[in-house]
Amino acid sequence: MKEFFAPQTIAVIGASSDPTKVGGMITRNIIASGFKGKLYPVNLKPGEIEGVPFIRSVDLVESVDLAIIVVPARFVVDEMKKLASIGTKNVIVITAGFKEEGKEGRLAEQQVHEIAKKNKMRVIGPNCFGVIDTQNNMNATFSSLLPPKGNVALGSQSGAVGATMLDWSRESCVGISKFVSLGNKMDVKESDLIRTFDRDKETKVIGIYTEGISDGEEFMRSVHEMKNKKPIIVLKSGRTSAGSRAASSHTGALAGSDSVYDAVFKKLNIIRAKDIDEMFDLFSVFSMSEKMENDGIAVITNAGGLGVMAADACSDSDSVKLAELSLETMDRIVKNIPSTASELNPIDLRGDAKNSDIEKALRIVSEDPGVGAALLLASPLDMIDLNAIAERLCAIRKEIRIPVAVSFAGGDVAEKASEILRKGGIPTFPTPDRAVLALSYLRDHSLNSAADEKVELPKVSGRNEVLKLIKEIKREDRSSLSEEEGKRILRSYGIPVPAESRATDMTEAAYVAGTIGYPVVMKILSPDIHHKTDVGGVVVGIKDENSLRIAYESMITRCKMTVPDAKIDGVSIQKMVSGQEVIVSMIRDDQFGPVLSFGLGGIYVEILKEISQTVLPVSKKEFERIITSTKAYRLLSGARGKPPADIDSLKDIILRLAKIAEENPEIYELEINPVMVNERSKGSWAVDALVTLR
Amino acid sequence: MKEFFAPQTIAVIGASSDPTKVGGMITRNIIASGFKGKLYPVNLKPGEIEGVPFIRSVDLVESVDLAIIVVPARFVVDEMKKLASIGTKNVIVITAGFKEEGKEGRLAEQQVHEIAKKNKMRVIGPNCFGVIDTQNNMNATFSSLLPPKGNVALGSQSGAVGATMLDWSRESCVGISKFVSLGNKMDVKESDLIRTFDRDKETKVIGIYTEGISDGEEFMRSVHEMKNKKPIIVLKSGRTSAGSRAASSHTGALAGSDSVYDAVFKKLNIIRAKDIDEMFDLFSVFSMSEKMENDGIAVITNAGGLGVMAADACSDSDSVKLAELSLETMDRIVKNIPSTASELNPIDLRGDAKNSDIEKALRIVSEDPGVGAALLLASPLDMIDLNAIAERLCAIRKEIRIPVAVSFAGGDVAEKASEILRKGGIPTFPTPDRAVLALSYLRDHSLNSAADEKVELPKVSGRNEVLKLIKEIKREDRSSLSEEEGKRILRSYGIPVPAESRATDMTEAAYVAGTIGYPVVMKILSPDIHHKTDVGGVVVGIKDENSLRIAYESMITRCKMTVPDAKIDGVSIQKMVSGQEVIVSMIRDDQFGPVLSFGLGGIYVEILKEISQTVLPVSKKEFERIITSTKAYRLLSGARGKPPADIDSLKDIILRLAKIAEENPEIYELEINPVMVNERSKGSWAVDALVTLR
Repeated sequence: MKEFFAPQTIAVIGASSDPTKVGGMITRNIIASGFKGKLYPVNLKPGEIEGVPFIRSVDLVESVDLAIIVVPARFVVDEMKKLASIGTKNVIVITAGFKEEGKEGRLAEQQVHEIAKKNKMRVIGPNCFGVIDTQNNMNATFSSLLPPKGNVALGSQSGAVGATMLDWSRESCVGISKFVSLGNKMDVKESDLIRTFDRDKETKVIGIYTEGISDGEEFMRSVHEMKNKKPIIVLKSGRTSAGSRAASSHTGALAGSDSVYDAVFKKLNIIRAKDIDEMFDLFSVFSMSEKMENDGIAVITNAGGLGVMAADACSDSDSVKLAELSLETMDRIVKNIPSTASELNPIDLRGDAKNSDIEKALRIVSEDPGVGAALLLASPLDMIDLNAIAERLCAIRKEIRIPVAVSFAGGDVAEKASEILRKGGIPTFPTPDRAVLALSYLRDHSLNSAADEKVELPKVSGRNEVLKLIKEIKREDRSSLSEEEGKRILRSYGIPVPAESRATDMTEAAYVAGTIGYPVVMKILSPDIHHKTDVGGVVVGIKDENSLRIAYESMITRCKMTVPDAKIDGVSIQKMVSGQEVIVSMIRDDQFGPVLSFGLGGIYVEILKEISQTVLPVSKKEFERIITSTKAYRLLSGARGKPPADIDSLKDIILRLAKIAEENPEIYELEINPVMVNERSKGSWAVDALVTLR
Repeated sequence: MKEFFAPQTIAVIGASSDPTKVGGMITRNIIASGFKGKLYPVNLKPGEIEGVPFIRSVDLVESVDLAIIVVPARFVVDEMKKLASIGTKNVIVITAGFKEEGKEGRLAEQQVHEIAKKNKMRVIGPNCFGVIDTQNNMNATFSSLLPPKGNVALGSQSGAVGATMLDWSRESCVGISKFVSLGNKMDVKESDLIRTFDRDKETKVIGIYTEGISDGEEFMRSVHEMKNKKPIIVLKSGRTSAGSRAASSHTGALAGSDSVYDAVFKKLNIIRAKDIDEMFDLFSVFSMSEKMENDGIAVITNAGGLGVMAADACSDSDSVKLAELSLETMDRIVKNIPSTASELNPIDLRGDAKNSDIEKALRIVSEDPGVGAALLLASPLDMIDLNAIAERLCAIRKEIRIPVAVSFAGGDVAEKASEILRKGGIPTFPTPDRAVLALSYLRDHSLNSAADEKVELPKVSGRNEVLKLIKEIKREDRSSLSEEEGKRILRSYGIPVPAESRATDMTEAAYVAGTIGYPVVMKILSPDIHHKTDVGGVVVGIKDENSLRIAYESMITRCKMTVPDAKIDGVSIQKMVSGQEVIVSMIRDDQFGPVLSFGLGGIYVEILKEISQTVLPVSKKEFERIITSTKAYRLLSGARGKPPADIDSLKDIILRLAKIAEENPEIYELEINPVMVNERSKGSWAVDALVTLR
């Protein structure tokens, strides 16, 4: 990957002297940006660009570090072959008309990929916008918009969104170290950027725009293996079904289910920006700040109203809060700045605050051990010289031990002073809310950077039992298991299942129920009926033989009526267990592998729509998070007089489910719905299981 | 109010020739802004400002239309008296040091207020920043930041936030008609601004920053009585407890409970902005657009990625969606713009789209009757001339029949073109998400502008019964009612209450239960125990006399143990009713009067934390909204096999509760928890009632 950024020689295949053509733009941009190495513009026709003569074919050159292909799609395979013949290892294919344009394009892309693999070439694109390396003065894109130098490395699936971010970086003074447009991600993908940018000395923060990560498992590995754990900020669009449709028509990316992305990003301590402006707020705060070791924010303001907004925002946040200032700090504020309107946080210095008052207040709060970051707010009143304050802050910034953020809220006047700050390395935000939000992400990231251990899974294996079962099922050419088969899997991993037996007629049912002991639950047994409750296939709380006989008859009749073609194998009779209904499940995501989910069960799953998720393998902190961050957990912990539930036994079931996922790649999906969680120390029970194989 | 804006004569009391003093700034700003009338700078000492000589005392002048007081707080009362003596009716008190500074200040403010009331003077302030009228070239503030002329009228409680907005308006090209800084709102408050701005010919949109509306009922009246129903956009801070604390230390505003504000704003079709940037996005779209008659947005883009973001945002919105283009429209797009990458919405014209293609696409979609607004997105690629597109759009804007919004997403390059658009009257947004959000508010406002009728309350009156009860309770010097007393109120308004009787010992309890019929519920009777469930004061499902005796004994023991001082009057025995538990309540808000609330009951109220609210009197649409917008409603409508509940009888109970609130001002709070909502046509029952008087 490295030679994409610091090549000694570049060939542009499809160079042009016409400045309106992509081949012309790229070649001119490389020259204009100050590229110091040797440049070969390649074109069949004779000509030159800015004094550099064209060459007829790239294989006339002895060797090329980086080749950029701009010729039409139908010529790309040939050019790849030529590049292979002269040993070029790094190629950017700008040309569009591949995977994103249907079957023919997909085949052409495959051909290109095979040449690349055979010859160990790395390829960026096709259908991309190029690469920028500000450190080495190389702009190999078809945009003349050059970003300022800095420490944010950017990758963008979309070229146009890349152009948006480059333009934005100039206005926001967020300096860029490297920029890569990924396009179709035939070879180089997000994981390659993570590995490269993590090693890059100029890069402190990594930013990625994507419409769907390619090769999710390799992506997770690349983040896990980062040596320098640089903050990664991702803007991922295509998050909704409508969005996904647009995504696949755009670059052919198959966007995964979006909630899994949230789980993956949380797991990897990746910050997900919700919009482009939020992404740049995050670039500002992360590129200009060190860690935020404490969640208290001290707010200093010349405008009470702005202070109120910051207090609101802190109160809304789960990650930061208004710092509780020490008595000593408040005392020092009052003594040193007598005109202070409020020494309580937010510290209100009034509209007529002197510049020196603001500096004093900042120094005082930064010495309070309860303060994790300082937020300075100011309104552009005539009595205050924001530019002078900005310059002074830049001068003393290094003496302040905590992150400092500023919101000079306003338009032209505020913006001029804000620019001074940003150029001096102090992050600024247009409003107090946005400043607090950015700090809350900084705090979150610092907090989650701490080392974390993998959860140890129970030492149990039901692999042999499962393999036996899978063989049986494959023999019958099925992929979905019956409830009974599902429970065999659960039992083989030590997951408690209530005593149960099957019966094929009413008399047998009555006998079985008598043996298990009333009360019992009766359920229809059929491989064709998945949501049994919906078709009257479940009756709970059967108290005696008489009720059982009545229930049996009506259940068979209703199921036959509702799903006429269903194969009915009889009923299962189950010991009735009680407790709070929850759901736990495992499903394999195409991109990221096995995903564990946990949520409330019963009718509330549809009303609450709250499912917490994580991707396996799971760490200790994550395991806690997916359980304790939920409303289900609040319910289980004992709300309003309800006794607390046996959460330990529930956790044990979830870990055993993780073990099943780990050992049995053939299982595509396994949902236990419901798990009944009884009162503390009374255990949890898997009452129903839905299993499908790949 | 009118003479605050177009005075013929102005006196500045406390004028100064020192440009660093507030009195100097204001006088200079009035002169500099081009005020055409007569100006009297008033100062005890001789002097002059910009050639206008000081006068010693304001009562030396024959008459003054508008007086601006800047002298220290201790002199303000005297100056008010002088102004009264010369018949001045409009006064702006800039001076701080009143209500916001404790008891002494509050007393001084009262004195000022009394002089004003006695002499029918209207007063803006004290502790404010002044007034601007761009139409009449008058800047009577101490900020030299003059906004551009336009159609947005601004009011701000905080002067500094006002200065922020004035600065912001210049950068965002949001033109201002009038600006008023309200300060302590001793006299002139939000409602006065609504009435004045609604009548003002230059004003199309009203924007207000507040930390708590003053005189909520008058505020609601002023909005109801607006003749021109101009859109009102409010930024209200102090929304959280931490925020509220800062608010009251700021200008002494007593912020009401924030959720009530949400209910009030929804009721009045007021748009609540969440942040300053969102507020200006809303100013843009409302000041530059007419109504949005249809919820479909057609997106036209030169960048697929930006289109994906817009599609995501539409999908997240409750108010707008991606328009489904007609086959004819798609056909016209393909025929007229052959290079189109996707004629499905978002319409992707590719990075090399010609300017004329964009114009064509805009005209075509605007003719599709399914399209309510057009959103044009563009990335600042080198192949496109955004400035030329902007100019062309401004030229043809009037020919397009629907609202048009634009996001040229980027920094310097995009911003330059965006400014051309805004100056030409086309709203622009930094990102596709923000554009969609702004359009969704426009759509919401259009939709909710339709006329709505008041709900008719049941023709029932229990006023006499309630008055009798209140007398009894006042005699005992109580303010909280027992459950039994609460139910008397409910019964007198025809709200169904399960058959019930009280008993003072175990034998009586058994007799009563036998009469009512098992199963029964037993509850402790005590005026001192409010949350009965928490102390073991409720036992449900008592099936026979034996269980009743056991339950009685243990209940009395537990209640005595948990609340030792509680006066215990015995138990109530109630017919047990079943159904879904919900809560309905009425509480009188200090600012806005009676608030109705509705939500799920039982343990879920604490887990879900979902309560829908409205302020009385309630309209038909609102009444539907507070019921159907909830998760409780989804549950009641029959989730997963549950039979649908008797929502009609629940609605009837809520309307009767509204009637109780209307007729009985002495009742401060009435909560029915739970209402048991049985299956459809089986009725709802008020099972418990908590009532407190003022």
